[in-house]
Amino acid sequence: MGGLTAIGFDADDTLWQNERFFRLTHDRFAALLADYAAPDHLMARLTAAERRNLGHYGFGIKGFTLSMIETAIEVTEARVPAAVIADLVAAGREMLEHPIELLPGARETVEALSGRYRVLLITKGDLLDQERKLAQSGLGDLFDGVEIVSHKTAESYAEIFARHGEGADRAMMVGNSLRSDVVPMLEAGGWGVHVPHELTWEFEAAEEPTDAPRYLRLARLAELPDALDRLAG
Amino acid sequence: MGGLTAIGFDADDTLWQNERFFRLTHDRFAALLADYAAPDHLMARLTAAERRNLGHYGFGIKGFTLSMIETAIEVTEARVPAAVIADLVAAGREMLEHPIELLPGARETVEALSGRYRVLLITKGDLLDQERKLAQSGLGDLFDGVEIVSHKTAESYAEIFARHGEGADRAMMVGNSLRSDVVPMLEAGGWGVHVPHELTWEFEAAEEPTDAPRYLRLARLAELPDALDRLAG
Repeated sequence: MGGLTAIGFDADDTLWQNERFFRLTHDRFAALLADYAAPDHLMARLTAAERRNLGHYGFGIKGFTLSMIETAIEVTEARVPAAVIADLVAAGREMLEHPIELLPGARETVEALSGRYRVLLITKGDLLDQERKLAQSGLGDLFDGVEIVSHKTAESYAEIFARHGEGADRAMMVGNSLRSDVVPMLEAGGWGVHVPHELTWEFEAAEEPTDAPRYLRLARLAELPDALDRLAG
Repeated sequence: MGGLTAIGFDADDTLWQNERFFRLTHDRFAALLADYAAPDHLMARLTAAERRNLGHYGFGIKGFTLSMIETAIEVTEARVPAAVIADLVAAGREMLEHPIELLPGARETVEALSGRYRVLLITKGDLLDQERKLAQSGLGDLFDGVEIVSHKTAESYAEIFARHGEGADRAMMVGNSLRSDVVPMLEAGGWGVHVPHELTWEFEAAEEPTDAPRYLRLARLAELPDALDRLAG
C-alpha cells in the first residue's frame, strides 16, 4: 500500500465520546416526560422526529434539541408545561458545553500517523460545536486539515481527498460509523476502516461490507498504525 | 490595484435576502405572544437572548429558533402554552425552507468578476442551511471556493485568502455587514467593501471606517465592477 497518502479521521465516537452525552440526555428527556409516556415509546417518537427533521436541521445538538421539543409537544398533545420545555432547552445547552473525553489511543494514534500521512479530521454536526470540541481536544495541531461537512457521501470524500491529497483511491477514512465513515469512502474508491464504538446512533448503522477488499475492521483505534504497516509490508 | 487576485462575497443580504425572513418571523413571534408582552419589550428580550446564546449556538436559524423558545418561556414566566412553542418551532422550520430571492445585480456582478478574479463565497450560519441556499441560488458554479465559517474575524479572512489566493492584502471582501465583512477584512490588510442593505441585524453594526484607505462603500452591488476598474486605472 505504498500509494496511501491521506488518512481521514471521524471525530465523534472515533476520537472522543459523543453518543454517551446523547444517551444521558435521552434519559433526562424520558424522566421529564415520564408522566406522559413510557420511555420506549418516547425514544421511538424522538428517533422518528430526528429522522424526519434531518433534511431540515442536519446533524448536531441544536437540531436534536428542537426534535426533543417537538416530540415533547407531540406526545403530550400540547399539554407539556413550558417549564419542561425550558429543561429541554437547558439539556441541549449542557450538551453543547460537555467536556471533551478523548477515547483510548486517540492522541497516540493520530500522533503516530501525523507527518507520515496527510491527516485530516472529517466530521459532521454543528460548525461551532465541532470547532469547540476540536479546540478542547488539544489535537488540533496534529491535523493537516479539518473539514466539517453537512453530509458524508462518496462525493464529499472524493472532493475532500482530491483537495487535500491525491484522491480518494490513495486515501483512508477511519471511523465508528459504517454508514457515514466506511461505506461512502469505499464507494469513493478509498479504504474504509471501521472502529466500532459501544454506543452508536442507530442512524449510523449499515450492513458490514465484509467482502470489500479495502474494508478493515479494528477493535481499537490504537491498532491502526500496525494495520497500516501490515498493509504496506 | 494590479495586485488584487481574490474577491470574497458575503451571502445573506449581500447576494440574497435573509434579514427580511427574520423580521417576518419577529412579527409572528410578537403576534403569538401579544397576550403576554408588548412587541418592543419582546424584541428587546429576544435580542438579549440571541446575544447571550451566540457563544453556544453560533449564527443561524436553529439557534434563533431556540432563542425564541427561551424568550417565550421567560417573558411568560413559563405560562406560555405548548401550542405556541409548537408554532415557534414551525416558524423556524419555515425559515429553513424559505425560497431564495437574489438581490438586484447579484448574478451579474459575480458573473462579471468570476474568471477575472478568484471569487469566493464566505458566509456564516448553519452549514446545511447555507448549502441549501447556495444550491437554490443557482450561483454555485460561479464561485471558485465556498467557505462557511463560525465567525468572520481578521484571522479567518487571513487564513481563507492565504488558502484560496495570495493572501488578504491582495484580496477584497464585499458585504452588507460592517462588523463581519468589512472591519475584520481591513484588519487583515485587505480591501473591505460595504454594500448596505436596508435591513441589517443590529448585531452586524459597527462604526463606518471612513478613514481606512482600503474601505469602499457602494450603494449597489452592481457598482462593483466599475469600482474595481477605477481602482485599477
